[in-house]
Amino acid sequence: MSEKIEYQSVMNKLFGRICKDENKGQIADYIPELSKVDPNLFGVCLRTIDGRVYGVGDWNEKFSIQSISKVLALSMAYKILGDEMWCRVGVEPSGTPFNSLLQLEADNGIPRNPFINAGAMVVCDMLISNTENPVEAFLSFARTVCANPNLNISEKIAESEKLVGFRNKALCNFIKSLGNIENDPEEVLNFYFKMCSIEMTCKELTATFMYLVDDNYIGEDGQRVMTMSQAKRINAIMLTCGFYDESGEFSFKVGLPGKSGVGGGIVALLPDKYCIAAWSPRLNEKGNSSRGMKFLEAFTTETQMSIF
Amino acid sequence: MSEKIEYQSVMNKLFGRICKDENKGQIADYIPELSKVDPNLFGVCLRTIDGRVYGVGDWNEKFSIQSISKVLALSMAYKILGDEMWCRVGVEPSGTPFNSLLQLEADNGIPRNPFINAGAMVVCDMLISNTENPVEAFLSFARTVCANPNLNISEKIAESEKLVGFRNKALCNFIKSLGNIENDPEEVLNFYFKMCSIEMTCKELTATFMYLVDDNYIGEDGQRVMTMSQAKRINAIMLTCGFYDESGEFSFKVGLPGKSGVGGGIVALLPDKYCIAAWSPRLNEKGNSSRGMKFLEAFTTETQMSIF
Amino acid sequence: MSEKIEYQSVMNKLFGRICKDENKGQIADYIPELSKVDPNLFGVCLRTIDGRVYGVGDWNEKFSIQSISKVLALSMAYKILGDEMWCRVGVEPSGTPFNSLLQLEADNGIPRNPFINAGAMVVCDMLISNTENPVEAFLSFARTVCANPNLNISEKIAESEKLVGFRNKALCNFIKSLGNIENDPEEVLNFYFKMCSIEMTCKELTATFMYLVDDNYIGEDGQRVMTMSQAKRINAIMLTCGFYDESGEFSFKVGLPGKSGVGGGIVALLPDKYCIAAWSPRLNEKGNSSRGMKFLEAFTTETQMSIF
Amino acid sequence: MSEKIEYQSVMNKLFGRICKDENKGQIADYIPELSKVDPNLFGVCLRTIDGRVYGVGDWNEKFSIQSISKVLALSMAYKILGDEMWCRVGVEPSGTPFNSLLQLEADNGIPRNPFINAGAMVVCDMLISNTENPVEAFLSFARTVCANPNLNISEKIAESEKLVGFRNKALCNFIKSLGNIENDPEEVLNFYFKMCSIEMTCKELTATFMYLVDDNYIGEDGQRVMTMSQAKRINAIMLTCGFYDESGEFSFKVGLPGKSGVGGGIVALLPDKYCIAAWSPRLNEKGNSSRGMKFLEAFTTETQMSIF
Repeated sequence: MSEKIEYQSVMNKLFGRICKDENKGQIADYIPELSKVDPNLFGVCLRTIDGRVYGVGDWNEKFSIQSISKVLALSMAYKILGDEMWCRVGVEPSGTPFNSLLQLEADNGIPRNPFINAGAMVVCDMLISNTENPVEAFLSFARTVCANPNLNISEKIAESEKLVGFRNKALCNFIKSLGNIENDPEEVLNFYFKMCSIEMTCKELTATFMYLVDDNYIGEDGQRVMTMSQAKRINAIMLTCGFYDESGEFSFKVGLPGKSGVGGGIVALLPDKYCIAAWSPRLNEKGNSSRGMKFLEAFTTETQMSIF
Repeated sequence: MSEKIEYQSVMNKLFGRICKDENKGQIADYIPELSKVDPNLFGVCLRTIDGRVYGVGDWNEKFSIQSISKVLALSMAYKILGDEMWCRVGVEPSGTPFNSLLQLEADNGIPRNPFINAGAMVVCDMLISNTENPVEAFLSFARTVCANPNLNISEKIAESEKLVGFRNKALCNFIKSLGNIENDPEEVLNFYFKMCSIEMTCKELTATFMYLVDDNYIGEDGQRVMTMSQAKRINAIMLTCGFYDESGEFSFKVGLPGKSGVGGGIVALLPDKYCIAAWSPRLNEKGNSSRGMKFLEAFTTETQMSIF
Repeated sequence: MSEKIEYQSVMNKLFGRICKDENKGQIADYIPELSKVDPNLFGVCLRTIDGRVYGVGDWNEKFSIQSISKVLALSMAYKILGDEMWCRVGVEPSGTPFNSLLQLEADNGIPRNPFINAGAMVVCDMLISNTENPVEAFLSFARTVCANPNLNISEKIAESEKLVGFRNKALCNFIKSLGNIENDPEEVLNFYFKMCSIEMTCKELTATFMYLVDDNYIGEDGQRVMTMSQAKRINAIMLTCGFYDESGEFSFKVGLPGKSGVGGGIVALLPDKYCIAAWSPRLNEKGNSSRGMKFLEAFTTETQMSIF
Repeated sequence: MSEKIEYQSVMNKLFGRICKDENKGQIADYIPELSKVDPNLFGVCLRTIDGRVYGVGDWNEKFSIQSISKVLALSMAYKILGDEMWCRVGVEPSGTPFNSLLQLEADNGIPRNPFINAGAMVVCDMLISNTENPVEAFLSFARTVCANPNLNISEKIAESEKLVGFRNKALCNFIKSLGNIENDPEEVLNFYFKMCSIEMTCKELTATFMYLVDDNYIGEDGQRVMTMSQAKRINAIMLTCGFYDESGEFSFKVGLPGKSGVGGGIVALLPDKYCIAAWSPRLNEKGNSSRGMKFLEAFTTETQMSIF
């Protein structure tokens, strides 16, 4: 398929086809606020390296990006700390979602990668130790990268997560007991829940992550977000660890670096070509958007473009 | 870096630099025959999609490719069985080398991926069930793919592995007890040890795996080895699972799909561009060739070409 | 309840009561030969320290004592090696049946206790290293302790177990790979399967284990089987480890040291008072005789005698 | 050894012998307040069923009984809830100290037994749900059982534990996330830390636990603490689970039901005969009092009296 591919018509076709199938899966209901979203919303946006933007469905609706925010937090920490950050968090896939507590113990509190909850908490802890006001600093980083001053955190969702986040509290206190959290676990959790509660549209997501697509990306502040080498490494981590224990499956079927969130969002990218974001709230049994996964698999099959 | 890159001079430079460093690491000594190899041998070969071949050091020495052979066995099974094979083996990274027995139980005998020993044994079991004489058939497949009738199995090494392979015997009997081995475990192990004992030079390795580099690859028998989609999927599995629990690290630092063996060989490839094979017997603590890993990391850094 | 307790009438009453209940549970069917036994057989025998013997039901039927034989093997090894044996096997409960492979790895091949399969295999390995003909020696030990030359091994059952014992083969090879088996795993397994296939009646079982009841027990050869201290320690291990992951439950509900086998036999004892053996082939979900467990719980409740 | 045993002279002899050996092991230093105790204190008290009391060394010094208090909490919950409590906590040994988080997940939040931290927290949660003021109620229960109004909680130690108890916070939030904590984890932890911080002397400990020695025990309020059957069952749990992953070892070497605490206290008992309490702050690598363990092993060896 040539690069003069008709992205819009391919997207329309696949979107229509998937909308005809039953909308399967469960909406994330363990966070009360998250469960209030309309399960039938579905949108996709694609942005090319040369700035063209294509959209279909509810691609201008805001939603809670949840774990996708971990890519931003990681980028911010990597920019600040450089490679020294890797002594506190690894870059290996974690194997299963269920053994993260076990693995942490075996690994002396060093989480396998920055995209499992344990790893993202350690990244949050780094940001707290290295910024004046971490929530402000994170939001400011996201706004700059997205070139969009209208990004915000949903305090309601952050509060809702905090109320029921017993497992995350367990995780953070456990890492603290193993010596890999510097700050008060309570403070780390508060920041973590806020970070996860940032809201974006599919369109904003694609704008945000162009720094991972374009080797020569310059932000609106006239600066690089990170070095080319750093960007490539974040792509590598997304490929091997971006979808929990469905990461291998995503790499196998879609063949792009990406990251999902329990809000139903998925962002993926083809280096040097495009960034794509899909959103649909119903999740498959691995916790990734059902329709989002289907769309992306069909899209790379149809366009015959992947990193492999 | 342009594609008119001077591969040979880059290879010479990096090879010279690495040879100056201390040759660290341990040779695999748990298989008596393997430990007899000269630890100072070191070679690299690169073959481009348009057929140019570059070599440095001991790139024409035969060595035991060990686990690299799992890519061949997987390709052969995938060609025969198609996607139905994935009901018996997964495509997810396994997390750690140490928990494979534990994971097998949790996963009802379905190994995480075809590159951990458990997974390769299930692939061997598939080949036994689907060929007349599996050892002959496997060797014939390898010779055809490599376009080289001189490939052979070292019976000495296969015997040596069998004598000390208690852990592999444990693994194979365990999978059998969980219902995912059809044939006699003894027979599966015999085939497995022979498959691992095939010998190649770096040059032969690059010839062998061109079908994973070139979307339009036609073998010497005038046929495709597998569909383009199948080849891309094997690349995806190599990227996420090719280096045991150093897979994320390899993806992070090198950024290419690849596969290592305890004989000290590593093969990696940049789709649509080249296949590269490095060999040096001393292994790092994760069981991958120390000098091979260093060379490949330096090579993609220097050439600034990776899949990301 | 006084010690002038009417054992026979209590046994008759409880036996009758339990026979009225549905005979629940599954017969062990993973060993083909074992599954051929009549599931409605049910017998109990009690032997007091002063030699009185009481029986009810099928207490004179031979059956495969299976894991109960591990107490004999342990006693024999303890007698030969003394406390030095404890550097190769522990005396701690194992927690779960499912993690024995995992635990072995964490514990460097030292099984938790001599009653899990892994531990019994290490004990068998000790006996092979310390006797001329281990099968003969073991049988001779059992006959002496029981004062009964008619004890025999069922070769049929041993063969049947060997044919399907993939998990045990896995276990034994795994311990070998971890360095805690001295002999050929094949030889250890052959002995292990024979040891487990010794057959006894309930009456013979109670005769066999009087050396654990009576501090001053002298065998028919005029010698002690083991020191008093050794006997007490075997009782202690039976209490904490005799019923796999139902050991705590048995201690809680029955309050006696004991050992079960998948053939449906259970032996238990009240030091200084009596030995009791119950047999009924249907097993509960933990792999212990359903009716046997029920009888023993009712018996200690009714007689109000336990070690606590 | 006859029961007219000279307890005092045996105790004096063993005490003297052990005092001559080096006082090995580490004092529990993870709780700052606990680490302030004099490591050379050492006392033992024995109380017979007929009320004679023997003591040696520092047997009238108060210390933090820590996990020994779990026996009291369990007794109180068992008295209130009866056998229905066992649907929320098991009676099986836990295998290892290290996998409690793992086991909890596998067991759906049902802790293995009431003596591991997870189990004691569930017991605390039961007491909170079933009493007006749980701290008051617990203290009142302890005072009644001990017939001693001077028992108190050290608020200092409770506070000290709370400040550093990240792992316990992790554990409690984890059980909450698995659905087996009814109340706010914060409240459960506060009660748990206070319960553990009750202080007693060796003499008071032996008085407290006579209800587990004497089948006919009547408290100072003229009432039984619990039924005979309940008391026997608590003894059974102490035997199989009282010393974490050294429980089998204690049963093997000492042969008595007992419970240890990281404050260096151990209480053990021979049903129908006596209760014994030993205290010395230095702990062995399993977290149990070094001198306490040595004393009790020597004591049952010397007196030749155990439950086996």
